[in-house]
Amino acid sequence: MANYKVGVLGATGAVGQKFITLLTGHPWFKVTAVAASARSAGKTYREAANWIESGDIPADIAGLIVQEAKPEFLGEVDFVFSGMDSAVAGDIEMEFAKAGIPVITNARNYRRHENVPLLVPEVNPGHTKLINTQKFSESGNGFIVTNPNCVCVPLVLSLKPLHDAFGLKSIVLTSMQAVSGAGYPGVPSLDIMGNVVPHIGGEEEKIMWEPQKLLGNLTGDKVELASIPIHASAYRVPVLNGHLLSVVADFEKDGITADDAREVYMNWKSPVQHLGLPSSPSNPIRLYDDPRYPQPRLHIHNENGMQVSIGKLREAGTSGIAFTALGHNTVRGAAGGAILNAELLVKEGFI
Amino acid sequence: MANYKVGVLGATGAVGQKFITLLTGHPWFKVTAVAASARSAGKTYREAANWIESGDIPADIAGLIVQEAKPEFLGEVDFVFSGMDSAVAGDIEMEFAKAGIPVITNARNYRRHENVPLLVPEVNPGHTKLINTQKFSESGNGFIVTNPNCVCVPLVLSLKPLHDAFGLKSIVLTSMQAVSGAGYPGVPSLDIMGNVVPHIGGEEEKIMWEPQKLLGNLTGDKVELASIPIHASAYRVPVLNGHLLSVVADFEKDGITADDAREVYMNWKSPVQHLGLPSSPSNPIRLYDDPRYPQPRLHIHNENGMQVSIGKLREAGTSGIAFTALGHNTVRGAAGGAILNAELLVKEGFI
Amino acid sequence: MANYKVGVLGATGAVGQKFITLLTGHPWFKVTAVAASARSAGKTYREAANWIESGDIPADIAGLIVQEAKPEFLGEVDFVFSGMDSAVAGDIEMEFAKAGIPVITNARNYRRHENVPLLVPEVNPGHTKLINTQKFSESGNGFIVTNPNCVCVPLVLSLKPLHDAFGLKSIVLTSMQAVSGAGYPGVPSLDIMGNVVPHIGGEEEKIMWEPQKLLGNLTGDKVELASIPIHASAYRVPVLNGHLLSVVADFEKDGITADDAREVYMNWKSPVQHLGLPSSPSNPIRLYDDPRYPQPRLHIHNENGMQVSIGKLREAGTSGIAFTALGHNTVRGAAGGAILNAELLVKEGFI
Amino acid sequence: MANYKVGVLGATGAVGQKFITLLTGHPWFKVTAVAASARSAGKTYREAANWIESGDIPADIAGLIVQEAKPEFLGEVDFVFSGMDSAVAGDIEMEFAKAGIPVITNARNYRRHENVPLLVPEVNPGHTKLINTQKFSESGNGFIVTNPNCVCVPLVLSLKPLHDAFGLKSIVLTSMQAVSGAGYPGVPSLDIMGNVVPHIGGEEEKIMWEPQKLLGNLTGDKVELASIPIHASAYRVPVLNGHLLSVVADFEKDGITADDAREVYMNWKSPVQHLGLPSSPSNPIRLYDDPRYPQPRLHIHNENGMQVSIGKLREAGTSGIAFTALGHNTVRGAAGGAILNAELLVKEGFI
Repeated sequence: MANYKVGVLGATGAVGQKFITLLTGHPWFKVTAVAASARSAGKTYREAANWIESGDIPADIAGLIVQEAKPEFLGEVDFVFSGMDSAVAGDIEMEFAKAGIPVITNARNYRRHENVPLLVPEVNPGHTKLINTQKFSESGNGFIVTNPNCVCVPLVLSLKPLHDAFGLKSIVLTSMQAVSGAGYPGVPSLDIMGNVVPHIGGEEEKIMWEPQKLLGNLTGDKVELASIPIHASAYRVPVLNGHLLSVVADFEKDGITADDAREVYMNWKSPVQHLGLPSSPSNPIRLYDDPRYPQPRLHIHNENGMQVSIGKLREAGTSGIAFTALGHNTVRGAAGGAILNAELLVKEGFI
Repeated sequence: MANYKVGVLGATGAVGQKFITLLTGHPWFKVTAVAASARSAGKTYREAANWIESGDIPADIAGLIVQEAKPEFLGEVDFVFSGMDSAVAGDIEMEFAKAGIPVITNARNYRRHENVPLLVPEVNPGHTKLINTQKFSESGNGFIVTNPNCVCVPLVLSLKPLHDAFGLKSIVLTSMQAVSGAGYPGVPSLDIMGNVVPHIGGEEEKIMWEPQKLLGNLTGDKVELASIPIHASAYRVPVLNGHLLSVVADFEKDGITADDAREVYMNWKSPVQHLGLPSSPSNPIRLYDDPRYPQPRLHIHNENGMQVSIGKLREAGTSGIAFTALGHNTVRGAAGGAILNAELLVKEGFI
Repeated sequence: MANYKVGVLGATGAVGQKFITLLTGHPWFKVTAVAASARSAGKTYREAANWIESGDIPADIAGLIVQEAKPEFLGEVDFVFSGMDSAVAGDIEMEFAKAGIPVITNARNYRRHENVPLLVPEVNPGHTKLINTQKFSESGNGFIVTNPNCVCVPLVLSLKPLHDAFGLKSIVLTSMQAVSGAGYPGVPSLDIMGNVVPHIGGEEEKIMWEPQKLLGNLTGDKVELASIPIHASAYRVPVLNGHLLSVVADFEKDGITADDAREVYMNWKSPVQHLGLPSSPSNPIRLYDDPRYPQPRLHIHNENGMQVSIGKLREAGTSGIAFTALGHNTVRGAAGGAILNAELLVKEGFI
Repeated sequence: MANYKVGVLGATGAVGQKFITLLTGHPWFKVTAVAASARSAGKTYREAANWIESGDIPADIAGLIVQEAKPEFLGEVDFVFSGMDSAVAGDIEMEFAKAGIPVITNARNYRRHENVPLLVPEVNPGHTKLINTQKFSESGNGFIVTNPNCVCVPLVLSLKPLHDAFGLKSIVLTSMQAVSGAGYPGVPSLDIMGNVVPHIGGEEEKIMWEPQKLLGNLTGDKVELASIPIHASAYRVPVLNGHLLSVVADFEKDGITADDAREVYMNWKSPVQHLGLPSSPSNPIRLYDDPRYPQPRLHIHNENGMQVSIGKLREAGTSGIAFTALGHNTVRGAAGGAILNAELLVKEGFI
């Protein structure tokens, strides 16, 4: 595989740092430019970043000069990853796309845009075709691809096989979300130590909307949104990494048992598994029998943080089935998910 | 009010310590005897108890000699509170009842017994009449009254007003439970620090069953169990005290809005409020408008831990309404609830 | 005792909230004015404050209109408490003093000013005479009194009796400090959950300097600083409230044993105990024999947070004695300490 | 290098699990036998172990049948690692040594035995010669080698270079120790969440004694203990892994500055570095300039947990220098240290 030159936008923030960490040693992608706010521009990355990942800043990145996030400042790059805050991501990402540079972003700004794929490779790989409907750049080379909210990734990954098999009728979920989901400095310790906060601004709305696009069908040039009733309650818990979901799913098909669901998972194959994407987990979904599993601290690092874990699969006391799902919010649910998206786009020739 | 002499069974354990803490300065009840396992018998309470409450052991208790939990060893007591482990509570509590001593217990052993009230004064005060069906002692004085599982208290307190108004059709809840619910030593720090554990042995079954009795109707000599479909998912979170519930309730009556529910709460009156029970909160239910509330660390001490807090009342994304409920698990959900039960029983002449 | 009208500067911050909480129901002092930054001015206190104390904002404060921190905006007040950030406290506090209003402050700005008492009533009550050397206001009524850094309070309270008895020769201490010491939002949860941070900016310098003034002698118009070699290492730990100190103290007098020190503590009497100050603990120093004590979570609330706890008193493996000391950093070490200072000043006629 | 067959004693406990995790993929050592208490014997390792490491039990270990810890039950092994509890380690380890099987143990039982090396390869590699004085087995093949208490490893590793250069005169340290140091179930969450406990049974005595042997000189057949005055205060903090030390070291040589110490560390070379031991970190000691470092959560995994980190090097406010040191307690301070010891013994021909 050829080597791609990659820029990282929002490189000094929490998601940007995760991009840099995960791209270290990546077989296809090499970070050649780092961009951040004007305040950081001109400093070395080492000076500009308040490094919160464990271990050291990768040696080849530490000395890079941080640039302002403008297409003309990044030198020649094949595409950019964006870990920018949504407050600024909208305009800047469009500027890059218009300049003919593909933008693979974790920001939420374009997730609902009708021409922009909201992409989880194992769930809706066909949605990449939406890119062809984007006319952001004259050259046709610039485009934007988004990955979903960090709760939605374990949610749709665990639901897609069941949806295909039984047809989802309704979903009720409670998410217990790690503090890293709020970035840095993010959640004050005085708020969350020994506590649970029953509110994460804007989160529940995303969890109820984004699966409709992810589970929607691409018909012609458009994604027809699914219309599955979803209720989401989002809680912040004193966990560093890993969003844990308590899910009850009911189905169009009656009488689905836990064993039915287990069989579906066992037989499920990821539609992109054969592509051998470097960040693709060998098993995107892992099912635990031990009722104490999965747990954020023990299992988020499974398959380098790219696996979604499921446990406590059982018939619900109401109707349908209930289970627990876990995903690494800053890896699978953010930077790692975006990298996997970029890998798919390379394979498909979009990049 | 006369002074009642009270024994505490299981006095050295976590629940026992909470009984002793809460009974300090109680206007009606005075602890005159403390009982525990044979291993502790003969020691002073100070020696026998690994005190985990903050502050000191109450001075009048510290010097009491711990007795074995046999009716004949406690001296003259008007009744006993039991904070015993369920592994031993069954036989011992029955022995006290047979000996003519009322047992107000937090243990789960007799909660499903058809002659034993499972009692939350604000929810099903009339169930105390079940006592008359108990023939445990020859004198007729001995009986057993239980309080429910610590999750069930905030659950049924928050649901009862809505059930009376709209008729519950189904309930889906996820509980985020504090470590104190597992007693002492209880949950190892290596298991729960920075983590969430999606399993609490036997808990979900209790949460799905006990509300059926609590919301059931006493007809003649029997409680007719309710038959509301309930799904419960119980999680342990790194919180010291306070169980937080994420609840979705659907109703027989269609189209119930959050405002409808809010109005019900505003107009609700506790059926035992007029009795002036010493441990009765002035407002058993508190409704928060701030979507960040209630939180375990900030609100469990409301009204000395006897108030249940509700927040984020909203229409569910599926059907019915959703809300968060909080209760202090070792006060309202255990020792404090048992004390309130005893106060009601005194008022009603059972003790 | 007459009623004093009191203003609170920096009322919306963490220390300001603690002032308001502690002054609720105070027998002498009534908060009649709350001041904060221009941004908050004009709002009700309820609107302006992001309330982080447990329970509700006191009803009589919630509706007060927040004022800008200027003498002319507070109405008639007898004195003010200041919980302002040191970035702004210097100028504003002097403005109040010049306007003839006594300022009892927790800010650090004037602690080293030669005319300003750095005061812990049980340690150096005589230093209040320094007030007479202040000529900040024309009327002579305005003055400034400071309390020390939150670590210094348990440090000097635990050392003063030993210093008087044996003469301190050197002190080596490590402080394990709660996150509330950094205010709100303060320490990010991503930094401190499951972690210890070996650095608190500027803290060690304060801990090594302030005791020199607190243990210094007032001679004529000046405090002659003590010159005891002190080494301090300050660590942030994931604790909400309560600074715990690991202290090794060596003495001029040789061969001091743990029993010698214990006897000194037993015989020590606070020099202000006879004054009956409302916030004065009945025992300012408590000595624990149980080697597991004191612990922040179990013992910070002793005597309403105004008691300093000492434990593990033993001979050091090097020379001198070693012990653990605990103080509530936002009560005894901040707002509560300032209130006690004000009470002493009232008794002595300065206010 | 040949392949060594290795048994692990105490294999189901916390230290035993760490041995198994660290030995997975080891280039020299292959675990062929696992032993535990009679209660576990006969079960598969998967059944017997309550696995607390993250990720899965290594596939080649999960199916091993747990044996009772008797020499005759382990099959042919070249040596054993012991992670047994000290309550049973004494007799069993001696039984293995007498049977001619080398025992590399983390247990404390033989650390003070005059014929048994207490070994940290970078600190006192020459002490391995003590093995020749052991006559535990008739064949002469059986022997015991111990590694020190988990605090002593970062302590002596950080002090040895300074001791060699300036001569240690006295040490005062406070350790902030992770909960994993107490094994599993170990510290109850109710004791340590949001808290600090100023007592760890027996710990301070070990920290004051063991460095005397580690820094002692081997003269003839005996280790002459050093006699450096050490004062240690041990605290338990809510951290999962990593013991952090606050150290003040004074020297025989006067006027040592932080720069002097920094230079010593920069020039220091590990005496075993040239041996290329597989578990040897490339830099056994890392010096941080950033005053916020090292931190347990960020830096314990440096060099696979085998590096000791030092930071905040500065002149003490009393005399000598002060610094922070960090070591991974269950890796460098336990299982990993024992494995490094075994590697040295292989290189030196003892195994």
